[in-house]
Order: sequence, then structure tokens, then C-alpha cells
Amino acid sequence: MKTDDQFVARLLDRDRPGIARAISMVEAGGEAARRLLDNIYPRTGRAYRVGITGPPGAGKSTLAGEIARTLRQSGHTIAIVAVDPTSPFTSGALLGDRVRMADLDNDEDVFIRSMATRGTGGGLGASTADAADIFDAAGFDYIFIESAGVGQTELDVRHLVDTTVVVLAPEAGDQVQAAKAGLMEIADIFVMNKCDRPGSGTAMQSIQSALSFRNHGSEHWQTRIIETVASESRGAAELVEEILRHKTCLQTTNKHAELLQKRVERRLRGSIRHAVDRQVWSSENEQCLEDALPQILSGKLAPADVVAQICTNITAPGKTDE
Amino acid sequence: MKTDDQFVARLLDRDRPGIARAISMVEAGGEAARRLLDNIYPRTGRAYRVGITGPPGAGKSTLAGEIARTLRQSGHTIAIVAVDPTSPFTSGALLGDRVRMADLDNDEDVFIRSMATRGTGGGLGASTADAADIFDAAGFDYIFIESAGVGQTELDVRHLVDTTVVVLAPEAGDQVQAAKAGLMEIADIFVMNKCDRPGSGTAMQSIQSALSFRNHGSEHWQTRIIETVASESRGAAELVEEILRHKTCLQTTNKHAELLQKRVERRLRGSIRHAVDRQVWSSENEQCLEDALPQILSGKLAPADVVAQICTNITAPGKTDE
Repeated sequence: MKTDDQFVARLLDRDRPGIARAISMVEAGGEAARRLLDNIYPRTGRAYRVGITGPPGAGKSTLAGEIARTLRQSGHTIAIVAVDPTSPFTSGALLGDRVRMADLDNDEDVFIRSMATRGTGGGLGASTADAADIFDAAGFDYIFIESAGVGQTELDVRHLVDTTVVVLAPEAGDQVQAAKAGLMEIADIFVMNKCDRPGSGTAMQSIQSALSFRNHGSEHWQTRIIETVASESRGAAELVEEILRHKTCLQTTNKHAELLQKRVERRLRGSIRHAVDRQVWSSENEQCLEDALPQILSGKLAPADVVAQICTNITAPGKTDE
Repeated sequence: MKTDDQFVARLLDRDRPGIARAISMVEAGGEAARRLLDNIYPRTGRAYRVGITGPPGAGKSTLAGEIARTLRQSGHTIAIVAVDPTSPFTSGALLGDRVRMADLDNDEDVFIRSMATRGTGGGLGASTADAADIFDAAGFDYIFIESAGVGQTELDVRHLVDTTVVVLAPEAGDQVQAAKAGLMEIADIFVMNKCDRPGSGTAMQSIQSALSFRNHGSEHWQTRIIETVASESRGAAELVEEILRHKTCLQTTNKHAELLQKRVERRLRGSIRHAVDRQVWSSENEQCLEDALPQILSGKLAPADVVAQICTNITAPGKTDE
């Protein structure tokens, strides 16, 4: 218990190796991770969380880097969680872009961390939210979650953040893909990156018209499109301004507290699922499943019967003690 | 019960509206879907399942169409499940490619069905596997699952199928992305589509060298790269031959039975999770969570205490009756 406390203290002190270790811990999962998250929970809820999502190649990492640099100028501390398997943050060995981020790497008040998307079974799942909580408890002012891929993962990010930024480039098909993947619905802010490229005007128009059809948004907030050329630092200041404008909007309309409550509820349900799983998969039930499998395969047992058997075997921890 | 039986009978008769309704049912989830799946379970395990995955724009749908046409010539029946949000199978309204598939649409022995990836909470989750089971029970010989997106979803497909085909095009960055996303590891067969385009040779080499480093494969199977131009029907016959070669390899080495067993186990665990969830989220526990939330947010209650409380409240259905 003593070591737990010391560990948490190092975290709250924004000790870099401590933070790195904590995130590896939540990535690995297990009991120690649970205890850590419970310990830091009371210190979370202070950081502002921004999701940056969009198709591969839209320039999300470069843009995240630019936003970080802009916010650093006003003295804010920043954490970037990259859950994008194609992100230069994620796997420096394969791309050279990592070099471009060198100044951020050397800044004590910027922490960049990539997360594995494989093997977690839940995509942008629990460990991304856990990492954000760790950065939050460690006192970072802004937490950026960069996620990519077409489909579910991109949409999930909105549950983890306060402001969702959707980044597109004027490449052929990007807008069609974005629309199909449901990205139009989740954007609080749109970014048309690489807006100096041909096709940018048409792309802007198609997003604009898609925006006019959607039913996200509210009477308090109108989603705008910000034009950037992240590789030349163009438009980053305007984007940061728009993010801060959205932050103010959420705070003055009480929507921020609502988002926070929803996040806490989602986390709580996740923790419950985790605890229940441990109860369900007792060695007795694992054995029951193992014995049943060959019988199901040979048609002697119906899957539904095995499900019923295993559910009957579940014993609540409280009940066992009675 | 009577209606259930009639419904299943229509399915086994390969009645198209019946199949369509059954898939909508499993997409929606719930008790009726569970019952249906239990009823058809004994009729599954006969179809051969092939996953087709790769980055958006690699030409997966066109290729799936070509494979279907080739297999039709030998009289096989085919189902295609498209879980790719950017697939022309999925959302005809946005792309014209749907027209190209008209001959397949009019073939009684080909069934193409797109699945929603949103809202299921699990990406390529249960309902895709359920749809495959429905097609399997309905007696289709081959079931193709087309999935896309960079990341988790692409990798998940391998758990649902016997043969995994990874499709790439010689576009810049495709191979890097594929490698990062872990696609190299899961391919039983590689396809270099659009192999008439510039850059194809380099792309082939880079996959070839990546293949030599990976540890998938086995002494029985060497992953090869098949070159195709799906839009011109080039290479489809060779690809089908390679798929059949892999099928024979799995069957002669007993690996096919092993894959089937793993799939049944995964499905069973999924069903158990579903049943357990219903037990956990009793109205009593929902109320407990609702009451606890404001207290957690105000710091009066620790999340861990609420988790423990809810776990204690779980009562196995068998125990209640005692």
C-alpha cells in the first residue's frame, strides 16, 4: 500500500518515468492498474480533453503538434495520446515524421504517448480513457487523443473527450468516406488540412453541404470549418481559438458537466464489467466451458444450455460469505 | 414457438426475404435473435468462410465480386457480408460502383448483405458472426466477409473466417499502413490489386520482404502474393485457386476443425457475456448506479465501492429460485 501511495505521489508530481510506467500498467490491465486508477480518480476531471480524428494521411499528428506548440506559447501543459496505428507518434521506426516532433519531445511540459490498438479487444477502449485519466491526475491542462481508421474507432473518440475535431484533407474520396463513417455527425470542429492543395474548394463545399443536413450541433454551437496547412503552421492559431471557443461554450451552457458525468458513468460501467468478468470466469466455470465444448461441437449439447449452466454457477462475492 | 420453427424452415430453404429478416433480427439483437441463433446452430459449420480485408480503396469489393463470379461458374452458392463502411456494397447512395454488381444482385445463388458497423459497440462484433451463421445454416457454400478500416477491425476478421485474404494496392503508404496495422501477421493470402499501376513492383518487394520477417504461416502453408486487376477480372481465377488450395491445406492438416472449435468457443463466450449482462443490469442495479453517480462526482463515494456493491447484488437466476 505504501508503494501505491508513493507511486501516486510521483504521478501527481508529473514525474515522467512515473507517468510512463503508470500508462504501461493500465495498458497491461489487471488488479494493480485498477487500484492505481481508483487512487488517482479523485484527482481527475480538471484537464480539458480534445479528440483529433479523421482518415489516415489527413495530417492529424502534424496538426496535433502545431496545436501543442500554440498552446505551449500561453504556458499550458499538454499530453498527446496517439491511438492511431498509422501515426508518426506511434511507430517511429517506420516513418521519418518523428523527427519533426523533436522540439515537442524535448519539452518537459509536453508528454506524447502512443497506445497499442491491438490486443485490447476493444479498439479505442478502456486503456485510452485510463491514459487520459493519468494525464489528467498528473495535472496536464490539455489532453489530445489522436485516433484514426475508418469506422467505429473514430466515432468512439467522442465519448472520451470534450471537443471532437475531425480532420480531412482535400483528397478524392475523403469526404465520402468521412460521411459514410459517420464523422460528419461527431465533429464539433472541422479542419480542412492541406487546404492549399487542388480540390480544396470542392471539398469545403461538400462538407459545408453535409453539415447543413446533419442534426448534431445545438442552438449554442455552430460547427465551422477551419482551413489549415499544418506542415507550414498555417491555421493552427485559428484552430486553437476555435477549440477554446468551444470549451467556453460547453462551460457556460453547463454541457461540460454533463459530458463529465457521462464519462464517469461509462467508466463505472466498464469497471463493473471488468469485476463481473472476474466473477463469471471462475475456475469452475472455465472448466465447465472446457468440458462442454466438445459436446457442443458434436451436437450433444446446445449452446444455450451451457450458457444457462454457467450463469447459474455465478456467485456474488457477498453471497459466498453468507 | 411454431412461428420460430416456420422461420427457421424458411431460412434453411434459402428463402431470401427470410434470410434478410433474420439478419436484421440479429443486427437488432435481443431475445428473439438469441432464440433464432440457438435454433439454427446445429445447421452451421458447413460453409467455408473467407475474410477479405485491407485499406479503403484497395478494391476489396470489386475483388469479392470477381471471386463470387468465378466460384459461381463451378456452381457454388455465395454470400458476401460487407462490414466496410466505405464499401460500394454498403451504401449505394453515395457511390456508383453498385451498378457494377448488378449481375450478382440478380443471381438467386448470390446474397450480398451489408452490415452496420456503428452502434454495435463492438466493431466487427457479434452480428457479423451471426450473419455468417445464418448464411451457413441457409446452406451457402462460401461466405465472404469484407471488412476495412485501419486497426482493430481488420484484425478481428481473422477470428470469423477460415482463410484471411489481405488486399493492398500499390498506392504510396499502403504497405506501411498495412504493416503498422498488423495486417502482415494475419494474411493467409496477399493480393496486390491494381498491379498494372506504377509502383507495383516496389510494393510487391516490400510485402515480400515483410513476409520473410513474420512468424505467422506454418510448415504447411506459405503465404503467397497474388497479382490482380480486379476491375478487369485479371487474376481472379488464380486467387480463387489459391483460396481453394488453402482450404485443402487446412482440411488435410486438421487445422480447419481447430479453427471451427475456436470460433464456437468465442461465440459461446459472447453468449455468456450477453446473458451475464442481463443478470447484472437488473433494475435494482441500474437504480444503484443512478443513485451513486452524483455521489461519485462530488467525491463522496469511491468508484470501487459502487463496483463492489453492484457485484454483491448479482443473483444467479438459479439461486433466486432456491
